[in-house]
Amino acid sequence: MSTDINQYVQAVLERNRRMVAKAITLIESSLPEHQEQARDIINKLLPHTGAATRVGITGVPGAGKSTFIESLGIHLLEKGHRVAVLAVDPSSKRSGGSLLADKTRMEKLAARAEAFIRPSPSGGTLGGVAQKTREASLVCEAAGFDIIIIETVGVGQSETAVASMVDFFLVLMIAGAGDELQGIKKGILELVDALVINKADGDNIPKVQRAQHDYAAAMHFLRPATPTWTPPVLTCSALETTGIATVWQTVLDHRKKLSETGELEEKRRRQALDWMWMLVEEGLKEKFNKNPNIKKQLPRIIRTIEKGRASPTEAAGELLRLMEDQSARQNPAGSPHYPH
Amino acid sequence: MSTDINQYVQAVLERNRRMVAKAITLIESSLPEHQEQARDIINKLLPHTGAATRVGITGVPGAGKSTFIESLGIHLLEKGHRVAVLAVDPSSKRSGGSLLADKTRMEKLAARAEAFIRPSPSGGTLGGVAQKTREASLVCEAAGFDIIIIETVGVGQSETAVASMVDFFLVLMIAGAGDELQGIKKGILELVDALVINKADGDNIPKVQRAQHDYAAAMHFLRPATPTWTPPVLTCSALETTGIATVWQTVLDHRKKLSETGELEEKRRRQALDWMWMLVEEGLKEKFNKNPNIKKQLPRIIRTIEKGRASPTEAAGELLRLMEDQSARQNPAGSPHYPH
Repeated sequence: MSTDINQYVQAVLERNRRMVAKAITLIESSLPEHQEQARDIINKLLPHTGAATRVGITGVPGAGKSTFIESLGIHLLEKGHRVAVLAVDPSSKRSGGSLLADKTRMEKLAARAEAFIRPSPSGGTLGGVAQKTREASLVCEAAGFDIIIIETVGVGQSETAVASMVDFFLVLMIAGAGDELQGIKKGILELVDALVINKADGDNIPKVQRAQHDYAAAMHFLRPATPTWTPPVLTCSALETTGIATVWQTVLDHRKKLSETGELEEKRRRQALDWMWMLVEEGLKEKFNKNPNIKKQLPRIIRTIEKGRASPTEAAGELLRLMEDQSARQNPAGSPHYPH
Repeated sequence: MSTDINQYVQAVLERNRRMVAKAITLIESSLPEHQEQARDIINKLLPHTGAATRVGITGVPGAGKSTFIESLGIHLLEKGHRVAVLAVDPSSKRSGGSLLADKTRMEKLAARAEAFIRPSPSGGTLGGVAQKTREASLVCEAAGFDIIIIETVGVGQSETAVASMVDFFLVLMIAGAGDELQGIKKGILELVDALVINKADGDNIPKVQRAQHDYAAAMHFLRPATPTWTPPVLTCSALETTGIATVWQTVLDHRKKLSETGELEEKRRRQALDWMWMLVEEGLKEKFNKNPNIKKQLPRIIRTIEKGRASPTEAAGELLRLMEDQSARQNPAGSPHYPH
């Protein structure tokens, strides 16, 4: 098995696309032995990661995310970069069909050897899906992809998850009819490093310019994401590939500024720690939810709360004691005392 | 002990102020036997709660919160209500001195028999402080206080905690110089049912009116807190007691609308469940943090993450296994398997 892992590591470092894909499949597998292998592979690849620029992209359906990512990707390939496109979509139930669909929708990019496109891992919690994408992006970095684009459809808290694994997070918008800002998802403006309004082409240009003005006013209400960066509102046409170079230049400007102040390094360090705590929290919750005592008693306890027959404090206390009872039964000699 | 508890319950229901205060002291105590007594008392009082109107108030220091609460309190006493004022301040290190200070700053209200003022429980986590305040408010409701005002200084996430225990949450603001909205704490506008600009008196009135206009524009960017309620922006002078009646009428309008649609009942049910989950989560984290294995290994694990020598996944896995090792050592025969 150790040879296996070294073969994976070696092949990924040699930029073997097939083995990059296989390593990501291991990461996505739920089999314990695959997870163990994946962990070992990632640990060995870790020293070869960190040099890439990590960009997160969100946007409502219809904003033209695929076309935008394809235009941006082609632009980057032309500049000599190697680009990996990954996704976090907790709603994804991937099948052979949708995998194909995902590659088809970026077919120009998918056809290029310097690009690597991988749809979202399917199923599981948002935390689980996001974790797999984050680890997949490390494999891509080790395989020499120097730009990682992580897309999300913005279901639930997936934007927060993606923002926490990238250096630069942008939201793709379109100009609507009239009151633009009602459509913005709560909290999204506080996460983004830039707002890009797509479909600035033909008759749509005046509408996009008005929207740009409205969004700029909204951004003004919020503090900049970091002291050194005020998120700009940009426009582009992914279809006509206008404005794409400016978007990328903005990513580079951001990177330069935050590198100089040390904020980029600090951001990545904080992201890694946040990530660890998120996983610990999820692990603790999973243990709670899988506890057979809890499973059995929870519906009754929820009913007593809903009917006002117990206080939340009492109910929480009972649930936490049920967790302990479980250990106590396994260990009847020395029942552990729950710390209060 | 059972007599003791019945005595407490009886006295609280008879509106004995001294016993209300003593019951709250039990709630705030960290002694396990006091906590047990407090739990029993609250359970017996629970059927006598729920009729009060619960109002939460936040605002930056200098917004005039004490004067506002005093003016509102006096207004409510004049209408025949009985008013309890409680606080959630996770930064509070209460001493005899500051307790006195707290009553002094609302001395007109504190002097009235129909009012009950209690400063924030001190120390502990935000969750702990908020939990004690929430339980204290139940004691006040059982003692016939039909309006509960819960104040917070807005440290950390305390606004979210208070919003989750009241029917109506308002933020008290003041007119500043120029760009009002930069000063608003992130996310606060999404929590509030009304925004009240204080100090609308004398020369300050034009400035307050401009601020009202700016805040109203900002509120427009956000969806209403519930489908039936759009948070208004009001003005008042707590000092001259103008606008206070309108603020209270707004609370009543809100209550009427949400009662009619059933949203108020649903909101309270949801709050109780959220509360329970928050306590469970805190209990799980506490258990984690108190684990001696974790305490010993955590600094090293954090260093490896910060230096990029381990992935967050690996580190989280190690921490969760350390939790299990603890149980294993207590129970060497059948080491429990951590669910993945």
